[in-house]
Amino acid sequence: MIGYGFMGATHSQAWRTAPRVFDLPRGVEMAVIVGRDAEAVEAARAKWGWAEAATDWREVVARDDIDVIDIVTPGSSHAEIAIAALEAGKHVLCEKPLANTVAEAEVMAAAARAARERGVRSMLGFTYRRVPALTHARDLIAAGRIGTVQQVRAAYRQDWLVDPKAPLSWRLQKDLAGSGALGDIGGHAVDLVQFLTGQRVTRVTGVLETIVRQRPVETERSGIAGVGGDELGDVTVDDLAIFTGRLDSGVLASFEATRFATGRKNELRVEVSGTEGAIAFDLEDLNVLWLYDRTAPATEQGFARVIVTEPGHPYLEGWWPAGHMLGYEHGFSHQVKDLVDAIAAGSDPEPGFDEGLHGQRVLDAVERSAARDAAWTAVDDD
Amino acid sequence: MIGYGFMGATHSQAWRTAPRVFDLPRGVEMAVIVGRDAEAVEAARAKWGWAEAATDWREVVARDDIDVIDIVTPGSSHAEIAIAALEAGKHVLCEKPLANTVAEAEVMAAAARAARERGVRSMLGFTYRRVPALTHARDLIAAGRIGTVQQVRAAYRQDWLVDPKAPLSWRLQKDLAGSGALGDIGGHAVDLVQFLTGQRVTRVTGVLETIVRQRPVETERSGIAGVGGDELGDVTVDDLAIFTGRLDSGVLASFEATRFATGRKNELRVEVSGTEGAIAFDLEDLNVLWLYDRTAPATEQGFARVIVTEPGHPYLEGWWPAGHMLGYEHGFSHQVKDLVDAIAAGSDPEPGFDEGLHGQRVLDAVERSAARDAAWTAVDDD
Amino acid sequence: MIGYGFMGATHSQAWRTAPRVFDLPRGVEMAVIVGRDAEAVEAARAKWGWAEAATDWREVVARDDIDVIDIVTPGSSHAEIAIAALEAGKHVLCEKPLANTVAEAEVMAAAARAARERGVRSMLGFTYRRVPALTHARDLIAAGRIGTVQQVRAAYRQDWLVDPKAPLSWRLQKDLAGSGALGDIGGHAVDLVQFLTGQRVTRVTGVLETIVRQRPVETERSGIAGVGGDELGDVTVDDLAIFTGRLDSGVLASFEATRFATGRKNELRVEVSGTEGAIAFDLEDLNVLWLYDRTAPATEQGFARVIVTEPGHPYLEGWWPAGHMLGYEHGFSHQVKDLVDAIAAGSDPEPGFDEGLHGQRVLDAVERSAARDAAWTAVDDD
Amino acid sequence: MIGYGFMGATHSQAWRTAPRVFDLPRGVEMAVIVGRDAEAVEAARAKWGWAEAATDWREVVARDDIDVIDIVTPGSSHAEIAIAALEAGKHVLCEKPLANTVAEAEVMAAAARAARERGVRSMLGFTYRRVPALTHARDLIAAGRIGTVQQVRAAYRQDWLVDPKAPLSWRLQKDLAGSGALGDIGGHAVDLVQFLTGQRVTRVTGVLETIVRQRPVETERSGIAGVGGDELGDVTVDDLAIFTGRLDSGVLASFEATRFATGRKNELRVEVSGTEGAIAFDLEDLNVLWLYDRTAPATEQGFARVIVTEPGHPYLEGWWPAGHMLGYEHGFSHQVKDLVDAIAAGSDPEPGFDEGLHGQRVLDAVERSAARDAAWTAVDDD
Repeated sequence: MIGYGFMGATHSQAWRTAPRVFDLPRGVEMAVIVGRDAEAVEAARAKWGWAEAATDWREVVARDDIDVIDIVTPGSSHAEIAIAALEAGKHVLCEKPLANTVAEAEVMAAAARAARERGVRSMLGFTYRRVPALTHARDLIAAGRIGTVQQVRAAYRQDWLVDPKAPLSWRLQKDLAGSGALGDIGGHAVDLVQFLTGQRVTRVTGVLETIVRQRPVETERSGIAGVGGDELGDVTVDDLAIFTGRLDSGVLASFEATRFATGRKNELRVEVSGTEGAIAFDLEDLNVLWLYDRTAPATEQGFARVIVTEPGHPYLEGWWPAGHMLGYEHGFSHQVKDLVDAIAAGSDPEPGFDEGLHGQRVLDAVERSAARDAAWTAVDDD
Repeated sequence: MIGYGFMGATHSQAWRTAPRVFDLPRGVEMAVIVGRDAEAVEAARAKWGWAEAATDWREVVARDDIDVIDIVTPGSSHAEIAIAALEAGKHVLCEKPLANTVAEAEVMAAAARAARERGVRSMLGFTYRRVPALTHARDLIAAGRIGTVQQVRAAYRQDWLVDPKAPLSWRLQKDLAGSGALGDIGGHAVDLVQFLTGQRVTRVTGVLETIVRQRPVETERSGIAGVGGDELGDVTVDDLAIFTGRLDSGVLASFEATRFATGRKNELRVEVSGTEGAIAFDLEDLNVLWLYDRTAPATEQGFARVIVTEPGHPYLEGWWPAGHMLGYEHGFSHQVKDLVDAIAAGSDPEPGFDEGLHGQRVLDAVERSAARDAAWTAVDDD
Repeated sequence: MIGYGFMGATHSQAWRTAPRVFDLPRGVEMAVIVGRDAEAVEAARAKWGWAEAATDWREVVARDDIDVIDIVTPGSSHAEIAIAALEAGKHVLCEKPLANTVAEAEVMAAAARAARERGVRSMLGFTYRRVPALTHARDLIAAGRIGTVQQVRAAYRQDWLVDPKAPLSWRLQKDLAGSGALGDIGGHAVDLVQFLTGQRVTRVTGVLETIVRQRPVETERSGIAGVGGDELGDVTVDDLAIFTGRLDSGVLASFEATRFATGRKNELRVEVSGTEGAIAFDLEDLNVLWLYDRTAPATEQGFARVIVTEPGHPYLEGWWPAGHMLGYEHGFSHQVKDLVDAIAAGSDPEPGFDEGLHGQRVLDAVERSAARDAAWTAVDDD
Repeated sequence: MIGYGFMGATHSQAWRTAPRVFDLPRGVEMAVIVGRDAEAVEAARAKWGWAEAATDWREVVARDDIDVIDIVTPGSSHAEIAIAALEAGKHVLCEKPLANTVAEAEVMAAAARAARERGVRSMLGFTYRRVPALTHARDLIAAGRIGTVQQVRAAYRQDWLVDPKAPLSWRLQKDLAGSGALGDIGGHAVDLVQFLTGQRVTRVTGVLETIVRQRPVETERSGIAGVGGDELGDVTVDDLAIFTGRLDSGVLASFEATRFATGRKNELRVEVSGTEGAIAFDLEDLNVLWLYDRTAPATEQGFARVIVTEPGHPYLEGWWPAGHMLGYEHGFSHQVKDLVDAIAAGSDPEPGFDEGLHGQRVLDAVERSAARDAAWTAVDDD
């Protein structure tokens, strides 16, 4: 595993847990954790239970005893590491976003396609696909349970920037973060809509906004995390993105990604409306799928609160008895399961880098639309 | 209409509204409003739109041009007025509770039976039966939609006594109010359970509690409503009742009536669990019926939030288009509609005085059980 | 009252009810109901309790004994009637939308301004402003309770067109209806956002969509309402509108109006996010205002479910005791109360025709933006 | 760890996870898993990651290299194992219930008291205390945030016995299971009420019911789990318990434990009403604590939906960033953390065996009350 931030913790938990709850076709060994700061990475190794710590990812990628490279570094380094790993014949699990730029994503996708010819697998870490309620929703939609999809909405809302005095962290600077709410959480919304509908966004019209344009600079002297001084610096990424996309089928999907939804901690709402029913979901209540069935008797129709922890629900075979709630991290264990299953089966795990590239292009088209007075803009697929 | 308190207002609204939204078989004229205080009753007359005001209910009951007597006075006077009215050949609508004592209720029920022989109708005002979501629930249960009922819960929760300094109003004094939470709101819970299941409570075990036993006496000198002086007086009614009843079929139903449920303004929750499904309802969200269908595919089962304002739902033919919410008072208009329909059809409106008598006996059995160390106590039906 | 459709029923209920629950400064007499079909208007008169029926609105507008004209006809006739009434010195209550075109709305607003000079009042019927929870929200925002507004969302979702075989009713034909989801329900969303924030939309970017473009023609021969024959006709209005507006302050507000939200019967959701808190509302649960308070202790913050039926809440003085739910129609009674109060006080009721004109211009700008590839488009205010 | 059923899986997950997310003062090694069936326990060892498997718990308890014994066997064997382990100087974590009988529980508690003198710790596994929302609720109540507690309700509702044809599993036979809904889930409700209020139940009145009294016998020949033959056997435990308890302070707490609440998968609802506020919780939405604050401005009061995944909330320092939901199993990791912390600090973890004994006595008093016609019955504390 390359990287050791928050995502390093969740991925470690997943690598540690998946083999213990699922019957995996291959054994899992948590071999090496890699980071530039030797002391910090050793601390992470000891805490999270990796066998070795290392500071040079190139050496690790070159080792014969390593089969899978899990990349949880910031997006700017994804391309270099992933391409090297794929060329070295390692299966790659890469955290989202695939890359910070479309250009990098294109090279990565090409490398993944080439590696695939040699039986090397690559997977992009959109774990929300593996929240059981959402996997279940996808299955129901694919089975025609809500009929023909006619409208889609997705919104990802957080509130950690509501305070205008919150400091100018690295996530608010374009050169470091690449993108703001659009890339960070809007990317999840796009991926989910495409996952649930099985369709792709082909054109977009959108607006990007930086609600608070200057924030206190974080100074080392302040000594207190999250507290800046008097100096103000520019926020150079969006903190609100509102856009509408057209899917292959012609259906419209509306999107919102915001860090200013006061009181919404991690609200990812998706609703898919069809001719025969609808599904609705909110990540703040992640074990629940709301299902509306237009084929029920007219006087009995209503959104049903399906608690997705029952026998027959996706991934539940590994966990606790019916009615015992799962949390955020379980999607990561499901991701490990599906990756190991795919490697063993010689099949491609989903989503692959091509899907990641497409998602990246959708976000790029939103940026271009926003720069063109919100004009409809084609997603630039090959 | 005899009486002019809060119930006078809602009944007036219902008499005024029902003929305007439903196609009633008989015309409705709001003839006389009666009260002891000539000035106050005249003010109520003018405000609510009655043709005349009067101070002697006996004279009104004797008038030939009056067909229906609507009794909204305190419970202690129900028996005398209702019996006189029935004997004078007037149809009677009587607010709940039927009476303050079982003995009075028995005489009233006998009078109603006698009057019925002469084609005179009587009806007791349990309007929650006519909230469309609850009428719909009853219909679904009667149609076998949730299979055989196996367990029932009902709780009526308010919070207007939470403050220990709230004054000793007349409602907290047994000689004036007759009963506390048990009679006032517990009676609704009992009626609803019997209405929904079509069964009767036959035995009970219960507890009555007065949580705050002394409160500031309201003095006229204080001059400010709701603010008492230093003097404390005894609360002589219960403010919390918890009891369990056995229905005809042997099924257990649990009940709670409380004025100490902090934050619950008017929460009347009912849940009926059956072999094939369940219904759940909360008066704080009164247009919604939650319906669980165990015959749905296993992975799609959940409580469905049915908004009961659609075509085909009970009483909705009179109101607004689908999706437009109704409120508390609409049950009273439905009551007027059903009463007028019954009078025109020569049939008995529901609930009749016999049902009211039975409900009274259930409450009486709870009081007797509570006084006997919570021992199981038979409802004393004839 | 001119007109006798669904809005005629709700307005009649309001005129009948408001004087009975509020202490109005003027008496209300329900004088004349007007419609072109003599038989139908007489039936409406009898049903709803108007003193007279008439077929010529011009004669009625000319009568000396009429003080207020209430216009509930289709939008295409609003201008002619309202202008005539205002010129005749009658106070006017006009259902929304003000008119079907901006040009008509401009003339109406000019007429209202001229009449105002002579003490004649005009009011536009956006009754959702008078749902107590929304009035309360406006008051809280105006008092600074949620700090500075930073983002706004509004969506009005219905589902009555989900079935592709639903017939081509007059509401789906531009020459008859003027507009589709945008004008019918999107107009409510725009009005509410402006009402809650006290700000105006100045620029928009938007998309209009007709999801199902052909539907069965309703033929008289089919003889069954809502059932068409084999012949298909074009739907010539939008059934989905998605747009984003910029308010005076620079804040972005996102809007959705759809008739394709399967399972959403009358979902009007509004959320206003501020620096110190947020409010959220849903018309399907109309007695509840969700209030988030960022000034509460950090570990106790959450959206509070405020049941807006308590003492101190707007309009509640007229209704039932705390905790007794109100419904859709009560907003109309509040409208009557506020109109009569304003007439008596010699002040202008809100919203006036100028606000209606502005709202109309916002919708017009959305149409122009949609026609210009979603480009940002200025609202064409004077 | 002794035992390897469902609880073995969750405890293993906790022992594996806690040291990786929390900074524990002692290292954790997963040494030996013990079970009678050598093959099955070896499979569990391999799956869950224990170093060794063993079949004789007495040998394991005697080993010098073992510090903690974790007992996850059925209740009937708790006493023997726990007492042996405590006498051998091992710290003991024992799954609930403490024992199947009060007599056994008394001996265990005595053994724990004796061991405590020698610095040996014992802990009972009521993990719901460690769901962050409930720990937070306890902290708020203890800090006086809701004032003086005036009423308490707790209900644990499941629905796995709704089908009358569900087979007669060992859990429905008194000789094997000891108790039914009362002991299995009612015990949780009692523990939570005592935990939240800091008070003890001193007297009870209650009802026990077996709703379906005969069920198909599971035969080995049927060969299919959960499918019985034609033969019926008696259900010898309760499947519904309804009881009311009086706390030290005199406050009444009502309880329900049922396996017949159709559609309720794992609904553990608790509500504590106080003079200044209230808390409400439902295990089906376990990251949420509802908090009502009567000290807020009157028109702004409502139950606030506090998402308990924020900085400052209990146990959250170990997990993911704000807004990322936790699941059922996390309480077990918190339990491990608190146990290891207590061992290192030389303090007693909570709840201890004495609390378990008291809880057992409450359940015993309910059984005695039910057998005495629901008469009020004292909890038989020393």
